[in-house]
Amino acid sequence: MEKKYVVGVDLGGTKIYTALVDLEGNVKNEIVIKTEADQGEVAVLNKILNTIDTVLNNVDINEVAAIGIGSPGPLDVENGLIVYTPNLPFKNFNIVKPIKEKYNVPTYLDNDANVATLGEFMFGAGKGTENMVFVTASTGIGGGAIINGKLFRGSTGNALEIGHMTVMKGGPRCGCGNDGCGESLGSGTAIMRRANEAVNSNAVTSLKDYSEVTAKEVFAEAEKGDRVANEILTNALSYLGITVANIANTFDPDMIVIGGGVVNGGDIVLETIKQEVENRCLRSISSHCRIEKAMLDGKAGMLGAAALAILETK
Amino acid sequence: MEKKYVVGVDLGGTKIYTALVDLEGNVKNEIVIKTEADQGEVAVLNKILNTIDTVLNNVDINEVAAIGIGSPGPLDVENGLIVYTPNLPFKNFNIVKPIKEKYNVPTYLDNDANVATLGEFMFGAGKGTENMVFVTASTGIGGGAIINGKLFRGSTGNALEIGHMTVMKGGPRCGCGNDGCGESLGSGTAIMRRANEAVNSNAVTSLKDYSEVTAKEVFAEAEKGDRVANEILTNALSYLGITVANIANTFDPDMIVIGGGVVNGGDIVLETIKQEVENRCLRSISSHCRIEKAMLDGKAGMLGAAALAILETK
Repeated sequence: MEKKYVVGVDLGGTKIYTALVDLEGNVKNEIVIKTEADQGEVAVLNKILNTIDTVLNNVDINEVAAIGIGSPGPLDVENGLIVYTPNLPFKNFNIVKPIKEKYNVPTYLDNDANVATLGEFMFGAGKGTENMVFVTASTGIGGGAIINGKLFRGSTGNALEIGHMTVMKGGPRCGCGNDGCGESLGSGTAIMRRANEAVNSNAVTSLKDYSEVTAKEVFAEAEKGDRVANEILTNALSYLGITVANIANTFDPDMIVIGGGVVNGGDIVLETIKQEVENRCLRSISSHCRIEKAMLDGKAGMLGAAALAILETK
Repeated sequence: MEKKYVVGVDLGGTKIYTALVDLEGNVKNEIVIKTEADQGEVAVLNKILNTIDTVLNNVDINEVAAIGIGSPGPLDVENGLIVYTPNLPFKNFNIVKPIKEKYNVPTYLDNDANVATLGEFMFGAGKGTENMVFVTASTGIGGGAIINGKLFRGSTGNALEIGHMTVMKGGPRCGCGNDGCGESLGSGTAIMRRANEAVNSNAVTSLKDYSEVTAKEVFAEAEKGDRVANEILTNALSYLGITVANIANTFDPDMIVIGGGVVNGGDIVLETIKQEVENRCLRSISSHCRIEKAMLDGKAGMLGAAALAILETK
């Protein structure tokens, strides 16, 4: 029977998104449920199986080419294991085997950043490119790369740890132990940290009107003209832009796709990134490389997992 | 007739190195002559052809699989053109065509950084790796990357412009126009600039005993215990190390090979680089990635050009 579909599963600490997707990336059936990670690994595995049953509802399993799963890491992709992840109950848990055995369909696993990269490459902003880097900036800064049309994983599966490139020697300490990482200067967490420093200083800023300040409030107050919020934002985005410029000088790609929560902060985000790339990259690189906003948003995970399934069975 | 050999030509502003090399990288015949670039493009082209004739001396041309040429850039590799280069007379000059026509053998061109990368990968320190980055630090900082066993060129042929990654926002102005590039902080030129600043200040340093100070004198005086020279060196090497660490976090390679004049400055060079990688990379990356000194030295260009010839005809 002709293989017309794949299933994509986006396994997250809060929610599981599962979709039946055709080979062009059109979602036929989809479902989202709460993960309820505290119920343990068997319960969560059963939830995943239930979502797959649901989206397969009116389809013959013989029409399904493969199943793809995106999960936070670290993973042992080759053996189908979730090694460990802070917000899920799995520990050295083989997530691929029970799914593969139940449906008798090839099943593939990869981490959320790689899966989102594949999603944007096959069905999103990066469609049609050969070399593309996906940069996601939210709490942290991460990414993935497509090189000559294929996902680049690195030798130990840890390539594109781009949030931990040093962009300012001696800068603020990062969660990774290093100082001056792009993540410690240009992520949503960095914006929140600097905003709270401002709130606790004698600076005059409307950020003090909030009981709790996150990156979202900084974006809102900068938009309204608060000088302190604007300064914090411009500074952080310039470091995000430097990270992107470093990537451009290194990969010389057709496109860099920017995703994650920070990119929804308004035009200032892409404008600042583009300016840093313009200022900091070789002309032959910056004149070719397009900087685009991610297109798949909340669906990046499940469409990316579907893309993984399609590419791995090709 | 069995193809046993390739020819590698390393075209430089000062010298032309040409070698007949077997498929295992053993040099059978070699010659080095002065480029004398001021004699113009026809004269230099004839010199190249003469060196090829010389190394082919006792060999049937039918045993030669291909000819590879390494040249400073920018190049138009696809069309075999040297677009322009400061120290050679060629301008939009097709260097491949006359060679290919004279010997009736496939002839390939690539820039010196890529060719040196291929040389270290096939015949030098990087032998046996799958993912390898070559970093060369002398006047500037440049490099090349092998990804999944193949040279990675980027979308416009400008990948691995790693000397222009920003490692200190607001740092010294680089020749490229950007501020705080690794090249403006960690290259031989950066060492020389800071040494001359020290000579012209009221600092107490033995560097003042020289009529002219380059990176070489800084290495020598640091070795002898001069504090100012040592401080300049340690600082510059730490920025070179940061550049290497950023590459490691991005490519997650099996090995990073360090070449160029700076690496001959003694054990302190590799030690400092390794320390920065240790401090700044994710454990899973730094525990896998080896940092090695380049092995081919002055022969990197001609052996790399030979490697290009071998790989392109495979």
